[in-house]
Amino acid sequence: MDIKKRVELIKRNTVEIITEQELEKLLKEKKNPSVYLGTAITGRPHIGYYIWVLKLADFLKAGFKVKVLLADMHGALDNCPWEVLDKRYKYYSKVIKLMFESMKIDIKNLEFVTGSSFELDRDYFLDVMKMSTYASIHDCIKAASEVVKLGDNPRLSGAIYPIMQALDEEYLDVDVQYGGIDQRKIFVFARENLPKIGYKPRIEVMTPLIPGLIGKKMSASDEKSKVDLLDDEETVKKKINSAECVSGDIDNGILAFLKNVIMVLKEEQGEDFIVERPGKYGGNLEYSDYEEVEEDFKEKTLHPLDLKNAVSQEINAMLSIFRKNRAELLKLAKEAYS
Amino acid sequence: MDIKKRVELIKRNTVEIITEQELEKLLKEKKNPSVYLGTAITGRPHIGYYIWVLKLADFLKAGFKVKVLLADMHGALDNCPWEVLDKRYKYYSKVIKLMFESMKIDIKNLEFVTGSSFELDRDYFLDVMKMSTYASIHDCIKAASEVVKLGDNPRLSGAIYPIMQALDEEYLDVDVQYGGIDQRKIFVFARENLPKIGYKPRIEVMTPLIPGLIGKKMSASDEKSKVDLLDDEETVKKKINSAECVSGDIDNGILAFLKNVIMVLKEEQGEDFIVERPGKYGGNLEYSDYEEVEEDFKEKTLHPLDLKNAVSQEINAMLSIFRKNRAELLKLAKEAYS
Repeated sequence: MDIKKRVELIKRNTVEIITEQELEKLLKEKKNPSVYLGTAITGRPHIGYYIWVLKLADFLKAGFKVKVLLADMHGALDNCPWEVLDKRYKYYSKVIKLMFESMKIDIKNLEFVTGSSFELDRDYFLDVMKMSTYASIHDCIKAASEVVKLGDNPRLSGAIYPIMQALDEEYLDVDVQYGGIDQRKIFVFARENLPKIGYKPRIEVMTPLIPGLIGKKMSASDEKSKVDLLDDEETVKKKINSAECVSGDIDNGILAFLKNVIMVLKEEQGEDFIVERPGKYGGNLEYSDYEEVEEDFKEKTLHPLDLKNAVSQEINAMLSIFRKNRAELLKLAKEAYS
Repeated sequence: MDIKKRVELIKRNTVEIITEQELEKLLKEKKNPSVYLGTAITGRPHIGYYIWVLKLADFLKAGFKVKVLLADMHGALDNCPWEVLDKRYKYYSKVIKLMFESMKIDIKNLEFVTGSSFELDRDYFLDVMKMSTYASIHDCIKAASEVVKLGDNPRLSGAIYPIMQALDEEYLDVDVQYGGIDQRKIFVFARENLPKIGYKPRIEVMTPLIPGLIGKKMSASDEKSKVDLLDDEETVKKKINSAECVSGDIDNGILAFLKNVIMVLKEEQGEDFIVERPGKYGGNLEYSDYEEVEEDFKEKTLHPLDLKNAVSQEINAMLSIFRKNRAELLKLAKEAYS
């Protein structure tokens, strides 16, 4: 794959890269650079997580070594009770691996790393202390504000959070960190603070947040805003049917999920996205790229209900892997989140 | 030594004990309890440090095992530059050991511990994170406010400081922490926060701060307010002679040092404090306890100049040990504080 194509692949569906020049330089210089994404062990994983699973697939195809950080310590710093941390970790590590499996991604160059496996090392804590002597509380809290549940009277843990996320870039020995745009302030904090203790700043890549089915953000803590990985077929259909999706208005979670997940997957598999419709309503619609769907939806050629039915089918197909191990997964989920 | 006498010895010259009941219970239950004092590796040690050297001698006599924590990490958290930390550590460990030697204290049950020797352990950092999920930034900063140089825009390190001081009580496995009254807020923070992560609160013992020769506090950063351990005889005389000490007014650093250090030492050695005076001014004065000195000073029977001369002599006697190794110590001090 030539450099132009590798750059395009990484940039696809991103909202910001700090900086694109550095990314291009990296790809020119290294055939196999490395990237990490951290997922804090907190709320219950939902289908919104597929956006980064697929983006990591792009990185893999572009020749990257990919590390998924199962950030147990960050989960604790962001209010996951210490008593259930290990149980949530078990659930996370299980379902996230299944997400990759369900996408049929070649994971030869994918590695899972647990935060506590290196963040409790002597040198790491020494660096936490070092960075804490340069970073003001004000800047730490500002950095954490979009990611950590801080409340009116923030705990100290919320201020330590961005320091450790910055250090993870160094200790995971990566060239790039990738995450949602909600991570932007922490990414900028990392770029500013790593050099103060003698480490190089990393390239930061960001994808959009997918809006919730209801409400602004697909949130782990709002059941109706999201489809859970363990939802059964009927529940998926019901949730998608109840989603906010006004005819002609493209600003909704259904289209966002279609764009950032389903259509990416369809393109990978060389398949079209098919909206089934009875002949009397015009028959099936077939889409090979997202722009056409959006166009039809805007012009009301594509009705929300038909779109929802098609999206439900796709999601149910994606989630079939979780239904094979359903009893075990439900047990793990219950221990972690009851 | 009976319990009553042990309690009295610990209480001598203290300003507060949290709580006295717990201390008495401890002494009843344990023949050899343990105590620690931490000294953060920051400013250059001065003669004010003798107050805790002597108080630790009281603990030793009362049957305690005593640990002196040479708190290098705390020094760094309180603005000691990382580049000179090791050099300051070398100076601290050298002169503080000499302070004990100069007092001829039986140090069989005294142990020096370096902060970084245990504070970088895995379990320790895990507990730092645990406590940080319970303690608010507001409470951490309030706790640190009398001890750490915070400024208008506090660094995160200043908030981590009291968390680590609380944990040191647990990790040093002591029954009591002892320090100056400026430590009070950190001590109270430790008592409140250790139980939140499953550890028992400790007993806290506090002695007063000795006022500076000039100004409110004997400060490492104000040369004229303090006598340095390496000052030569002439410099000691000059500084003491320039000290604020108004005839009849007992509120000054000279009398405070006499009370908390010199008279304690004299009592230990079974000697009187002697103020030499020419016969024509009434001849020598001899004191076996501090109250008599204070009384005479109040009534202006004892003139400030005579008091100062006697105190200079005593300090010079105490510091003679530092003059034996003067060249080496000056070299270490220069490396650490230039």
